[in-house]
Formats: sequence, C-alpha cells, structure tokens
Amino acid sequence: MSTKKNPSALLHARRQWLTGTASALGAVGLGSWMGPAAAQTAAAAPAAAAAAKPLPAYAAWKNAAQLIQHSSSTLETRRSAFGTSVITPASQLYVRNNLPAPDAAILDDRDAWTLSVEGVKNPRSLRLAELKTLGLETVATVIQCSGNGRGFFPSKPSGTPWTVGAAGCVLWSGVPLRNVVTALGGLADGMLYITGTGGEKLPEGVDPGSVIVERSVPIKALEDALLAWEMNGEPLSLAHGGPLRLIVPGYQGVNNIKYVKSLAFTAQESKARIMSHGYRMTPAGAKAAPDQPSVLEMGVKSWINGPLPETGPVKEGLVQIHGVAFGGTQAIKGVEVSVDGGKNWYPARLVGPDLGRFAWRQFVLSVRLPAGSYTLASRATDAQGQVQAELREENLSGYNNNSWRDHAVTITVV
Amino acid sequence: MSTKKNPSALLHARRQWLTGTASALGAVGLGSWMGPAAAQTAAAAPAAAAAAKPLPAYAAWKNAAQLIQHSSSTLETRRSAFGTSVITPASQLYVRNNLPAPDAAILDDRDAWTLSVEGVKNPRSLRLAELKTLGLETVATVIQCSGNGRGFFPSKPSGTPWTVGAAGCVLWSGVPLRNVVTALGGLADGMLYITGTGGEKLPEGVDPGSVIVERSVPIKALEDALLAWEMNGEPLSLAHGGPLRLIVPGYQGVNNIKYVKSLAFTAQESKARIMSHGYRMTPAGAKAAPDQPSVLEMGVKSWINGPLPETGPVKEGLVQIHGVAFGGTQAIKGVEVSVDGGKNWYPARLVGPDLGRFAWRQFVLSVRLPAGSYTLASRATDAQGQVQAELREENLSGYNNNSWRDHAVTITVV
Repeated sequence: MSTKKNPSALLHARRQWLTGTASALGAVGLGSWMGPAAAQTAAAAPAAAAAAKPLPAYAAWKNAAQLIQHSSSTLETRRSAFGTSVITPASQLYVRNNLPAPDAAILDDRDAWTLSVEGVKNPRSLRLAELKTLGLETVATVIQCSGNGRGFFPSKPSGTPWTVGAAGCVLWSGVPLRNVVTALGGLADGMLYITGTGGEKLPEGVDPGSVIVERSVPIKALEDALLAWEMNGEPLSLAHGGPLRLIVPGYQGVNNIKYVKSLAFTAQESKARIMSHGYRMTPAGAKAAPDQPSVLEMGVKSWINGPLPETGPVKEGLVQIHGVAFGGTQAIKGVEVSVDGGKNWYPARLVGPDLGRFAWRQFVLSVRLPAGSYTLASRATDAQGQVQAELREENLSGYNNNSWRDHAVTITVV
Repeated sequence: MSTKKNPSALLHARRQWLTGTASALGAVGLGSWMGPAAAQTAAAAPAAAAAAKPLPAYAAWKNAAQLIQHSSSTLETRRSAFGTSVITPASQLYVRNNLPAPDAAILDDRDAWTLSVEGVKNPRSLRLAELKTLGLETVATVIQCSGNGRGFFPSKPSGTPWTVGAAGCVLWSGVPLRNVVTALGGLADGMLYITGTGGEKLPEGVDPGSVIVERSVPIKALEDALLAWEMNGEPLSLAHGGPLRLIVPGYQGVNNIKYVKSLAFTAQESKARIMSHGYRMTPAGAKAAPDQPSVLEMGVKSWINGPLPETGPVKEGLVQIHGVAFGGTQAIKGVEVSVDGGKNWYPARLVGPDLGRFAWRQFVLSVRLPAGSYTLASRATDAQGQVQAELREENLSGYNNNSWRDHAVTITVV
C-alpha cells in the first residue's frame, strides 16, 4: 500500500539525488527497497565497478586478494578464503553498507560517541564512555547479509550477486542492551520492538525516511542484543560500524545497526522505507509491501568451503571436505555431506571450539575419492531438528537463500 | 656439566659470528642460553633499538601502534591493546624468534613444504599437501613466551623485558600429530619425547647445535599436538611460523616450533643447546645445566588488562575491571580480583565463549569505586584447584613469572 504513497514525488526526489551524486550512490549498491528507478541506477554501477580497483578508503586496510569488490560498499569474502579456524579475521570480513560510511573522524574520540535511548522509563542520551561502565559481554555471532546467496537465483534479482561470502563469524564485545535498559529504569509500557537508527550522513534533497538506516526487531531480541565497541579483539572499525554497533545475535546483517545513534523501544515498527519496503520476502512479480515477512532471524544453513573448483583439481585419495554451518538463533546439531549431489549423505564431524549457538561450526568429512567428478553438498540440522532446505524460497530480492542445492560445488579429482 | 664442554671453543665460534653479524644478532635478541658472551652482545642491541622504528619486513603488516618493538625479532603486544574478545588478532600478536625468520619465499608454494618424520614404524618425509589429507582439527591455545613477565624481575635477567604482552590467545588449524603417527605405522618402540626442529637458516661458522631451534617435549603431548598451517582463519604467516608450525597446546611458546622441518620421536631429549641449557629454571647465581627443570607446560596465570595506569585516570563510579586467565593444560575454574593490592578478593565473572582448556578466559569484575588510588590484582584458579602464586619463582633467566603480585597495577580514580 505505502509503495503507492506519492511515488512520483519520491522518485523525483531520488532522481535528483542520483543525478547529483551518481557515482557515490552507484558505489553504495543501494537495493531494490529504494524503488525501481533508484534500484536500476544503483544496479548499473556495481557491474561496471567490478573490475580490479583499489579498496575504498574506509576498508583500505583489508586483504584485497581475499575479497571480491562488487562496489565500494559491497565487499565479499572469497569462498576459498574462509579457512577452517572458526573466526573470520576482520581483514577478510565482508562489508555491505546501505549508505556511504560516515567520516572516519567519528572514531577520533570514540568515548564521546552519543547514543540516545527512548522507550524506557528514564529516556536520555549516554556517551560511549558511560556505556562502558554498565557491563561487559562477549559473544560470537554469524553476521550475514540477507542477500547472501542471491547470486544463485536464476531470476537474477537486483542487488549484489553475493554467493557465500557476505557472511562471517566474529567476536563482539560490548554491553548487553538489557543492562542499559535496567540503568534507564526499565522498558516503557507496551513496547514491542527494538528500533535502531544508524548515524550515517543522509544525502540532501531526499526524504530522510526513504534512505535512513533504521530497523526494528522484536523485543524478544533484547535478551541477547549487545551494544558492541570491539570486534575480534580490536576497537570496532569504521567499515564494521565503529565506534558503536547494535548486535542482534542470530538476525540478518541489516538488523545489526552500524554507527548506532539512537535506540528506541517502540510499539510499532519503524516507518523508514528500509523497514517498510526494504528487506521483505516479496513474492516474485509482486511489489514490496509492509505486510510481507521481514528479514529477521536467520535460518539453518551450511556450505562447503573446500575443496572448491576454483582452487584446482584435487589429488585422488583421502580428501578433507570442510565448511561452515549455523542455525541463526539455534545451535547446530549436525551436518551431513554428500559427494554425489545429494543422493547419499554422510555425517560430518564438527571440529574446533563451540563458540555458542550464534556462531558457526566448522565441519569436516574425511573421505577417500578416486578420480572423477563429484558434486559436494552439505546439509545442516539445528538443535530444534530443523533441516536445511534443498530449495531456495523464491522471492523478488533474493533474500534468505539457505538452499543446500544452490550451494553445492562440483570438483574434479585426478 | 655440558656447560663446561669446551666452552672456550664455543665462545670463540660465537664471538666470530657475532663480530660478523652483530646488528642482525642484536636484533634477534638471543637469550642467555647462548652463553655469557653472546648474551651480553645480544642484550646491548635491543635497548638501543627500542626507539620508534618501522616494523621488520616479515611483520610489516602488523599494527605497529599496538606493539612494543624490543628488537626486530621481539615484538610485544601493548597491555592496553588486549581488548575483551578472547582472540588476539594476528595484527597484534607478539613475536619472538630465536633466529632470524627464514626468507619469505618459503611461503611461495606452501604445499611443497616438506616435513621429515622419524621415530615411527615407517619414517619418511611428507609434503604439506599430504599432511592436509590426513585430518583436520582446530584448537584455541594461549601462546606465550616463557620469558613473559621477565620485566617484573628486580634482578633484571638478560633477555627481553616483556611484561604481559608476550602472549596471546589464537586459533590454530591443522592436522593432529597423532594422525600423522598413525599414517606412518605408529610410534617406534621406546620413544619418550617429541623433538621438533625449526627450518631457520643457521648462521655459518658456528656449531649448528649451539643455535638450532630444536626442542623436546614429553610424548604425552602427542595427545593434543597439532601441525598447523592456519592461524585465526588465515594461512599461517611467516612471523608466526608459516607454512607449518608444531603446536603443543598448553606448553610455553618455544616448544611450538616454527617452520617445522623435522619431527622425531626420540628416546632422549635433544642435545641442542636451546634444549640442554636454554629455557631452564636455573637458580639465580648458578649456570644453566641440563639437570634443571625445562620450560614446558605453563602454570596458572592471569592479569588485568583494564583499567590501566597508561590509559589515564578513571572516572569514579562503576568500573569494569577485566583481564585474561589461563591454566596451561588445565581449564580455568575461577578468577578473583582485588582492588586493594591483595588484601581482599572478590570473585570475577568469566565472560564470552569458552574456547577450551588451552585457551584463556576473559574475566570481569564490575565494581563501584570512589575517587582514590587502587591497586588492582587478579588471581586465577585452575580446574585442579591450583591457585596462581603470589610470588614469582626466582630464576636466572626470568622464566615462568606467574606472580599475581608482579602483575598488579595501580590506577587513579577521580
């Protein structure tokens, strides 16, 4: 319904903005939730920009060799780079920004960063220095763009064609959000959502609600949510949302608000377009609308990271097939691996430390393979018995691709 | 006894070498196990070199701002850099090399690296590519130089004056050493030690046994030992022993042989000087000798990483006192924190994921502090009930400093 709300005025405003800042916007890789005109303009640029380019300034410290640069704000980890040691190093972690990253000057005095909190008994603003006094927790989570796996949709949805590399497993340190709520007197009555707002500078000349990064998650997420200032043992970088990021363990990446400036406990979802129309499970051929399911908790998913076709033929004999598996808010119970495209399945072994139910597990199947061609697939089961689906759920924007079949790879053994 | 074995010839050879390569050697920071003359020469250089210098080439990718560069082969993590998210990023991890790092060309073809294995039923050499077929495991360990804490010894032992930063907690991926033994037919009879030899280029003109990095650990370490090719999700760097390193979980750093070229299961300890005289718990005033205890398993230890005097005065009110605790081969049962220099102790909370008994745990004590001066200390207890000692065990070379008193810090609250 509200897709129809004054669409020409919105499109006009967006076109103006796009005209003024076409290259910056194209680089940002804005998705289909902006509306057709903006999406088309934005979609054209990343393809052209995909040739080898230096990394953007805010991410120049990353390992370019292990990243696919779709645009200046969409960097994907190469599948062959994931390795087997559970944690994704910052230098290889994917980036997906919905707006250009803020000026790096916001990191000059991290403790001075201010967060406003509303929807509590005693709403007020808190400096990061004060947040650091309210408690400390560390949690390992899978952080994943909901469009991860979009590249496997034959429908070629608009948006970045990620395969598996818009995901990683990292450690966050910060204060549990519930501690902050307690310090501010508890929740106001009737609040059903946690609504976080990013501190990006908004482009001028457009309705702020059409571009602002503001997302609402159900209040139940309060139990695990964290306000994080550190990732993988280092102060949180600009590329990953520093100085302060809302972490909602088990939820798709977009809900983990970078440069979080405002947290509101609200009775309703945000009206921002990124919430009302963005990141919805819109049926193919339909238009995004607020009554379609939003992209929130991640489902059970796994994929194989080695051996891969891109790393060349494999020598016959013993082969270690390895990959990652996670269950969103659920722990992983087990992973099966197939070497014949899903006809037969063998239980894989989970390896390495278990970093908790929000992290991914590494798995390995040791198998003796004679020369030939093999289609490797993995299928995870979570602690509640949910099994990773064979087929993707078709949708307009290519979200939530958990299909084991889409993630299969065919290798040659010689 | 064998300290006496032809000492003048040994010293002569070493002096010659030192004359020829004085700056390189000084940079290496060779320790007292080399004998008095070499140690004196080596000790002089690091002090002069301590001024701000660019990082050495093999570690140029590290975060210089978070490291103290004692010499080109002794880099220490700043205490304030440890953070609270369990894993130490590679960019901040300490380095201590006993010999100059090999040429980086050894990483050009990682899979071609060759390891010879002896003391098994079917001894032979294996390429790294073959090791990668024999199994896969990931383990988190504390890696720590046995001289960590030497800087707290009033006796100022020769060697790098590390305080707390010659340690980190990282993830290693590779093949369990016991898999390799199985693949080679099992252990030969009567073998009591695992003896690993590093692949460093040895300086010419000296007895190889006087400088080669070769260490023996008891055969019981076979249960947990790993041949690792990956650290923290990335192929193992030259700085940390790539392409292949022997990891002996729970054992002091020197036993985790970098660039491991040879593994021998042996009936006796290596006769190399670094084993026979180096890294021994030599009484103050005595000379190193093979009958003194070697530096093997780490003991229970903890220290506080924040707040610290170097990060400035702390605001009065709630303060989060945090640090790390580990027990070598034993898990941590608990940590107590004192704010009055050890008169009273309060149980701290362990935070974040438990990465297994070889990893360290982060701990935090949330405490309300009025303005004043506070001496913060931590005291860990391992799963077997061993309590971290108040006082260091005095020894010639400043090894194994687990003293909680030495690690205390005094902060100002305003």
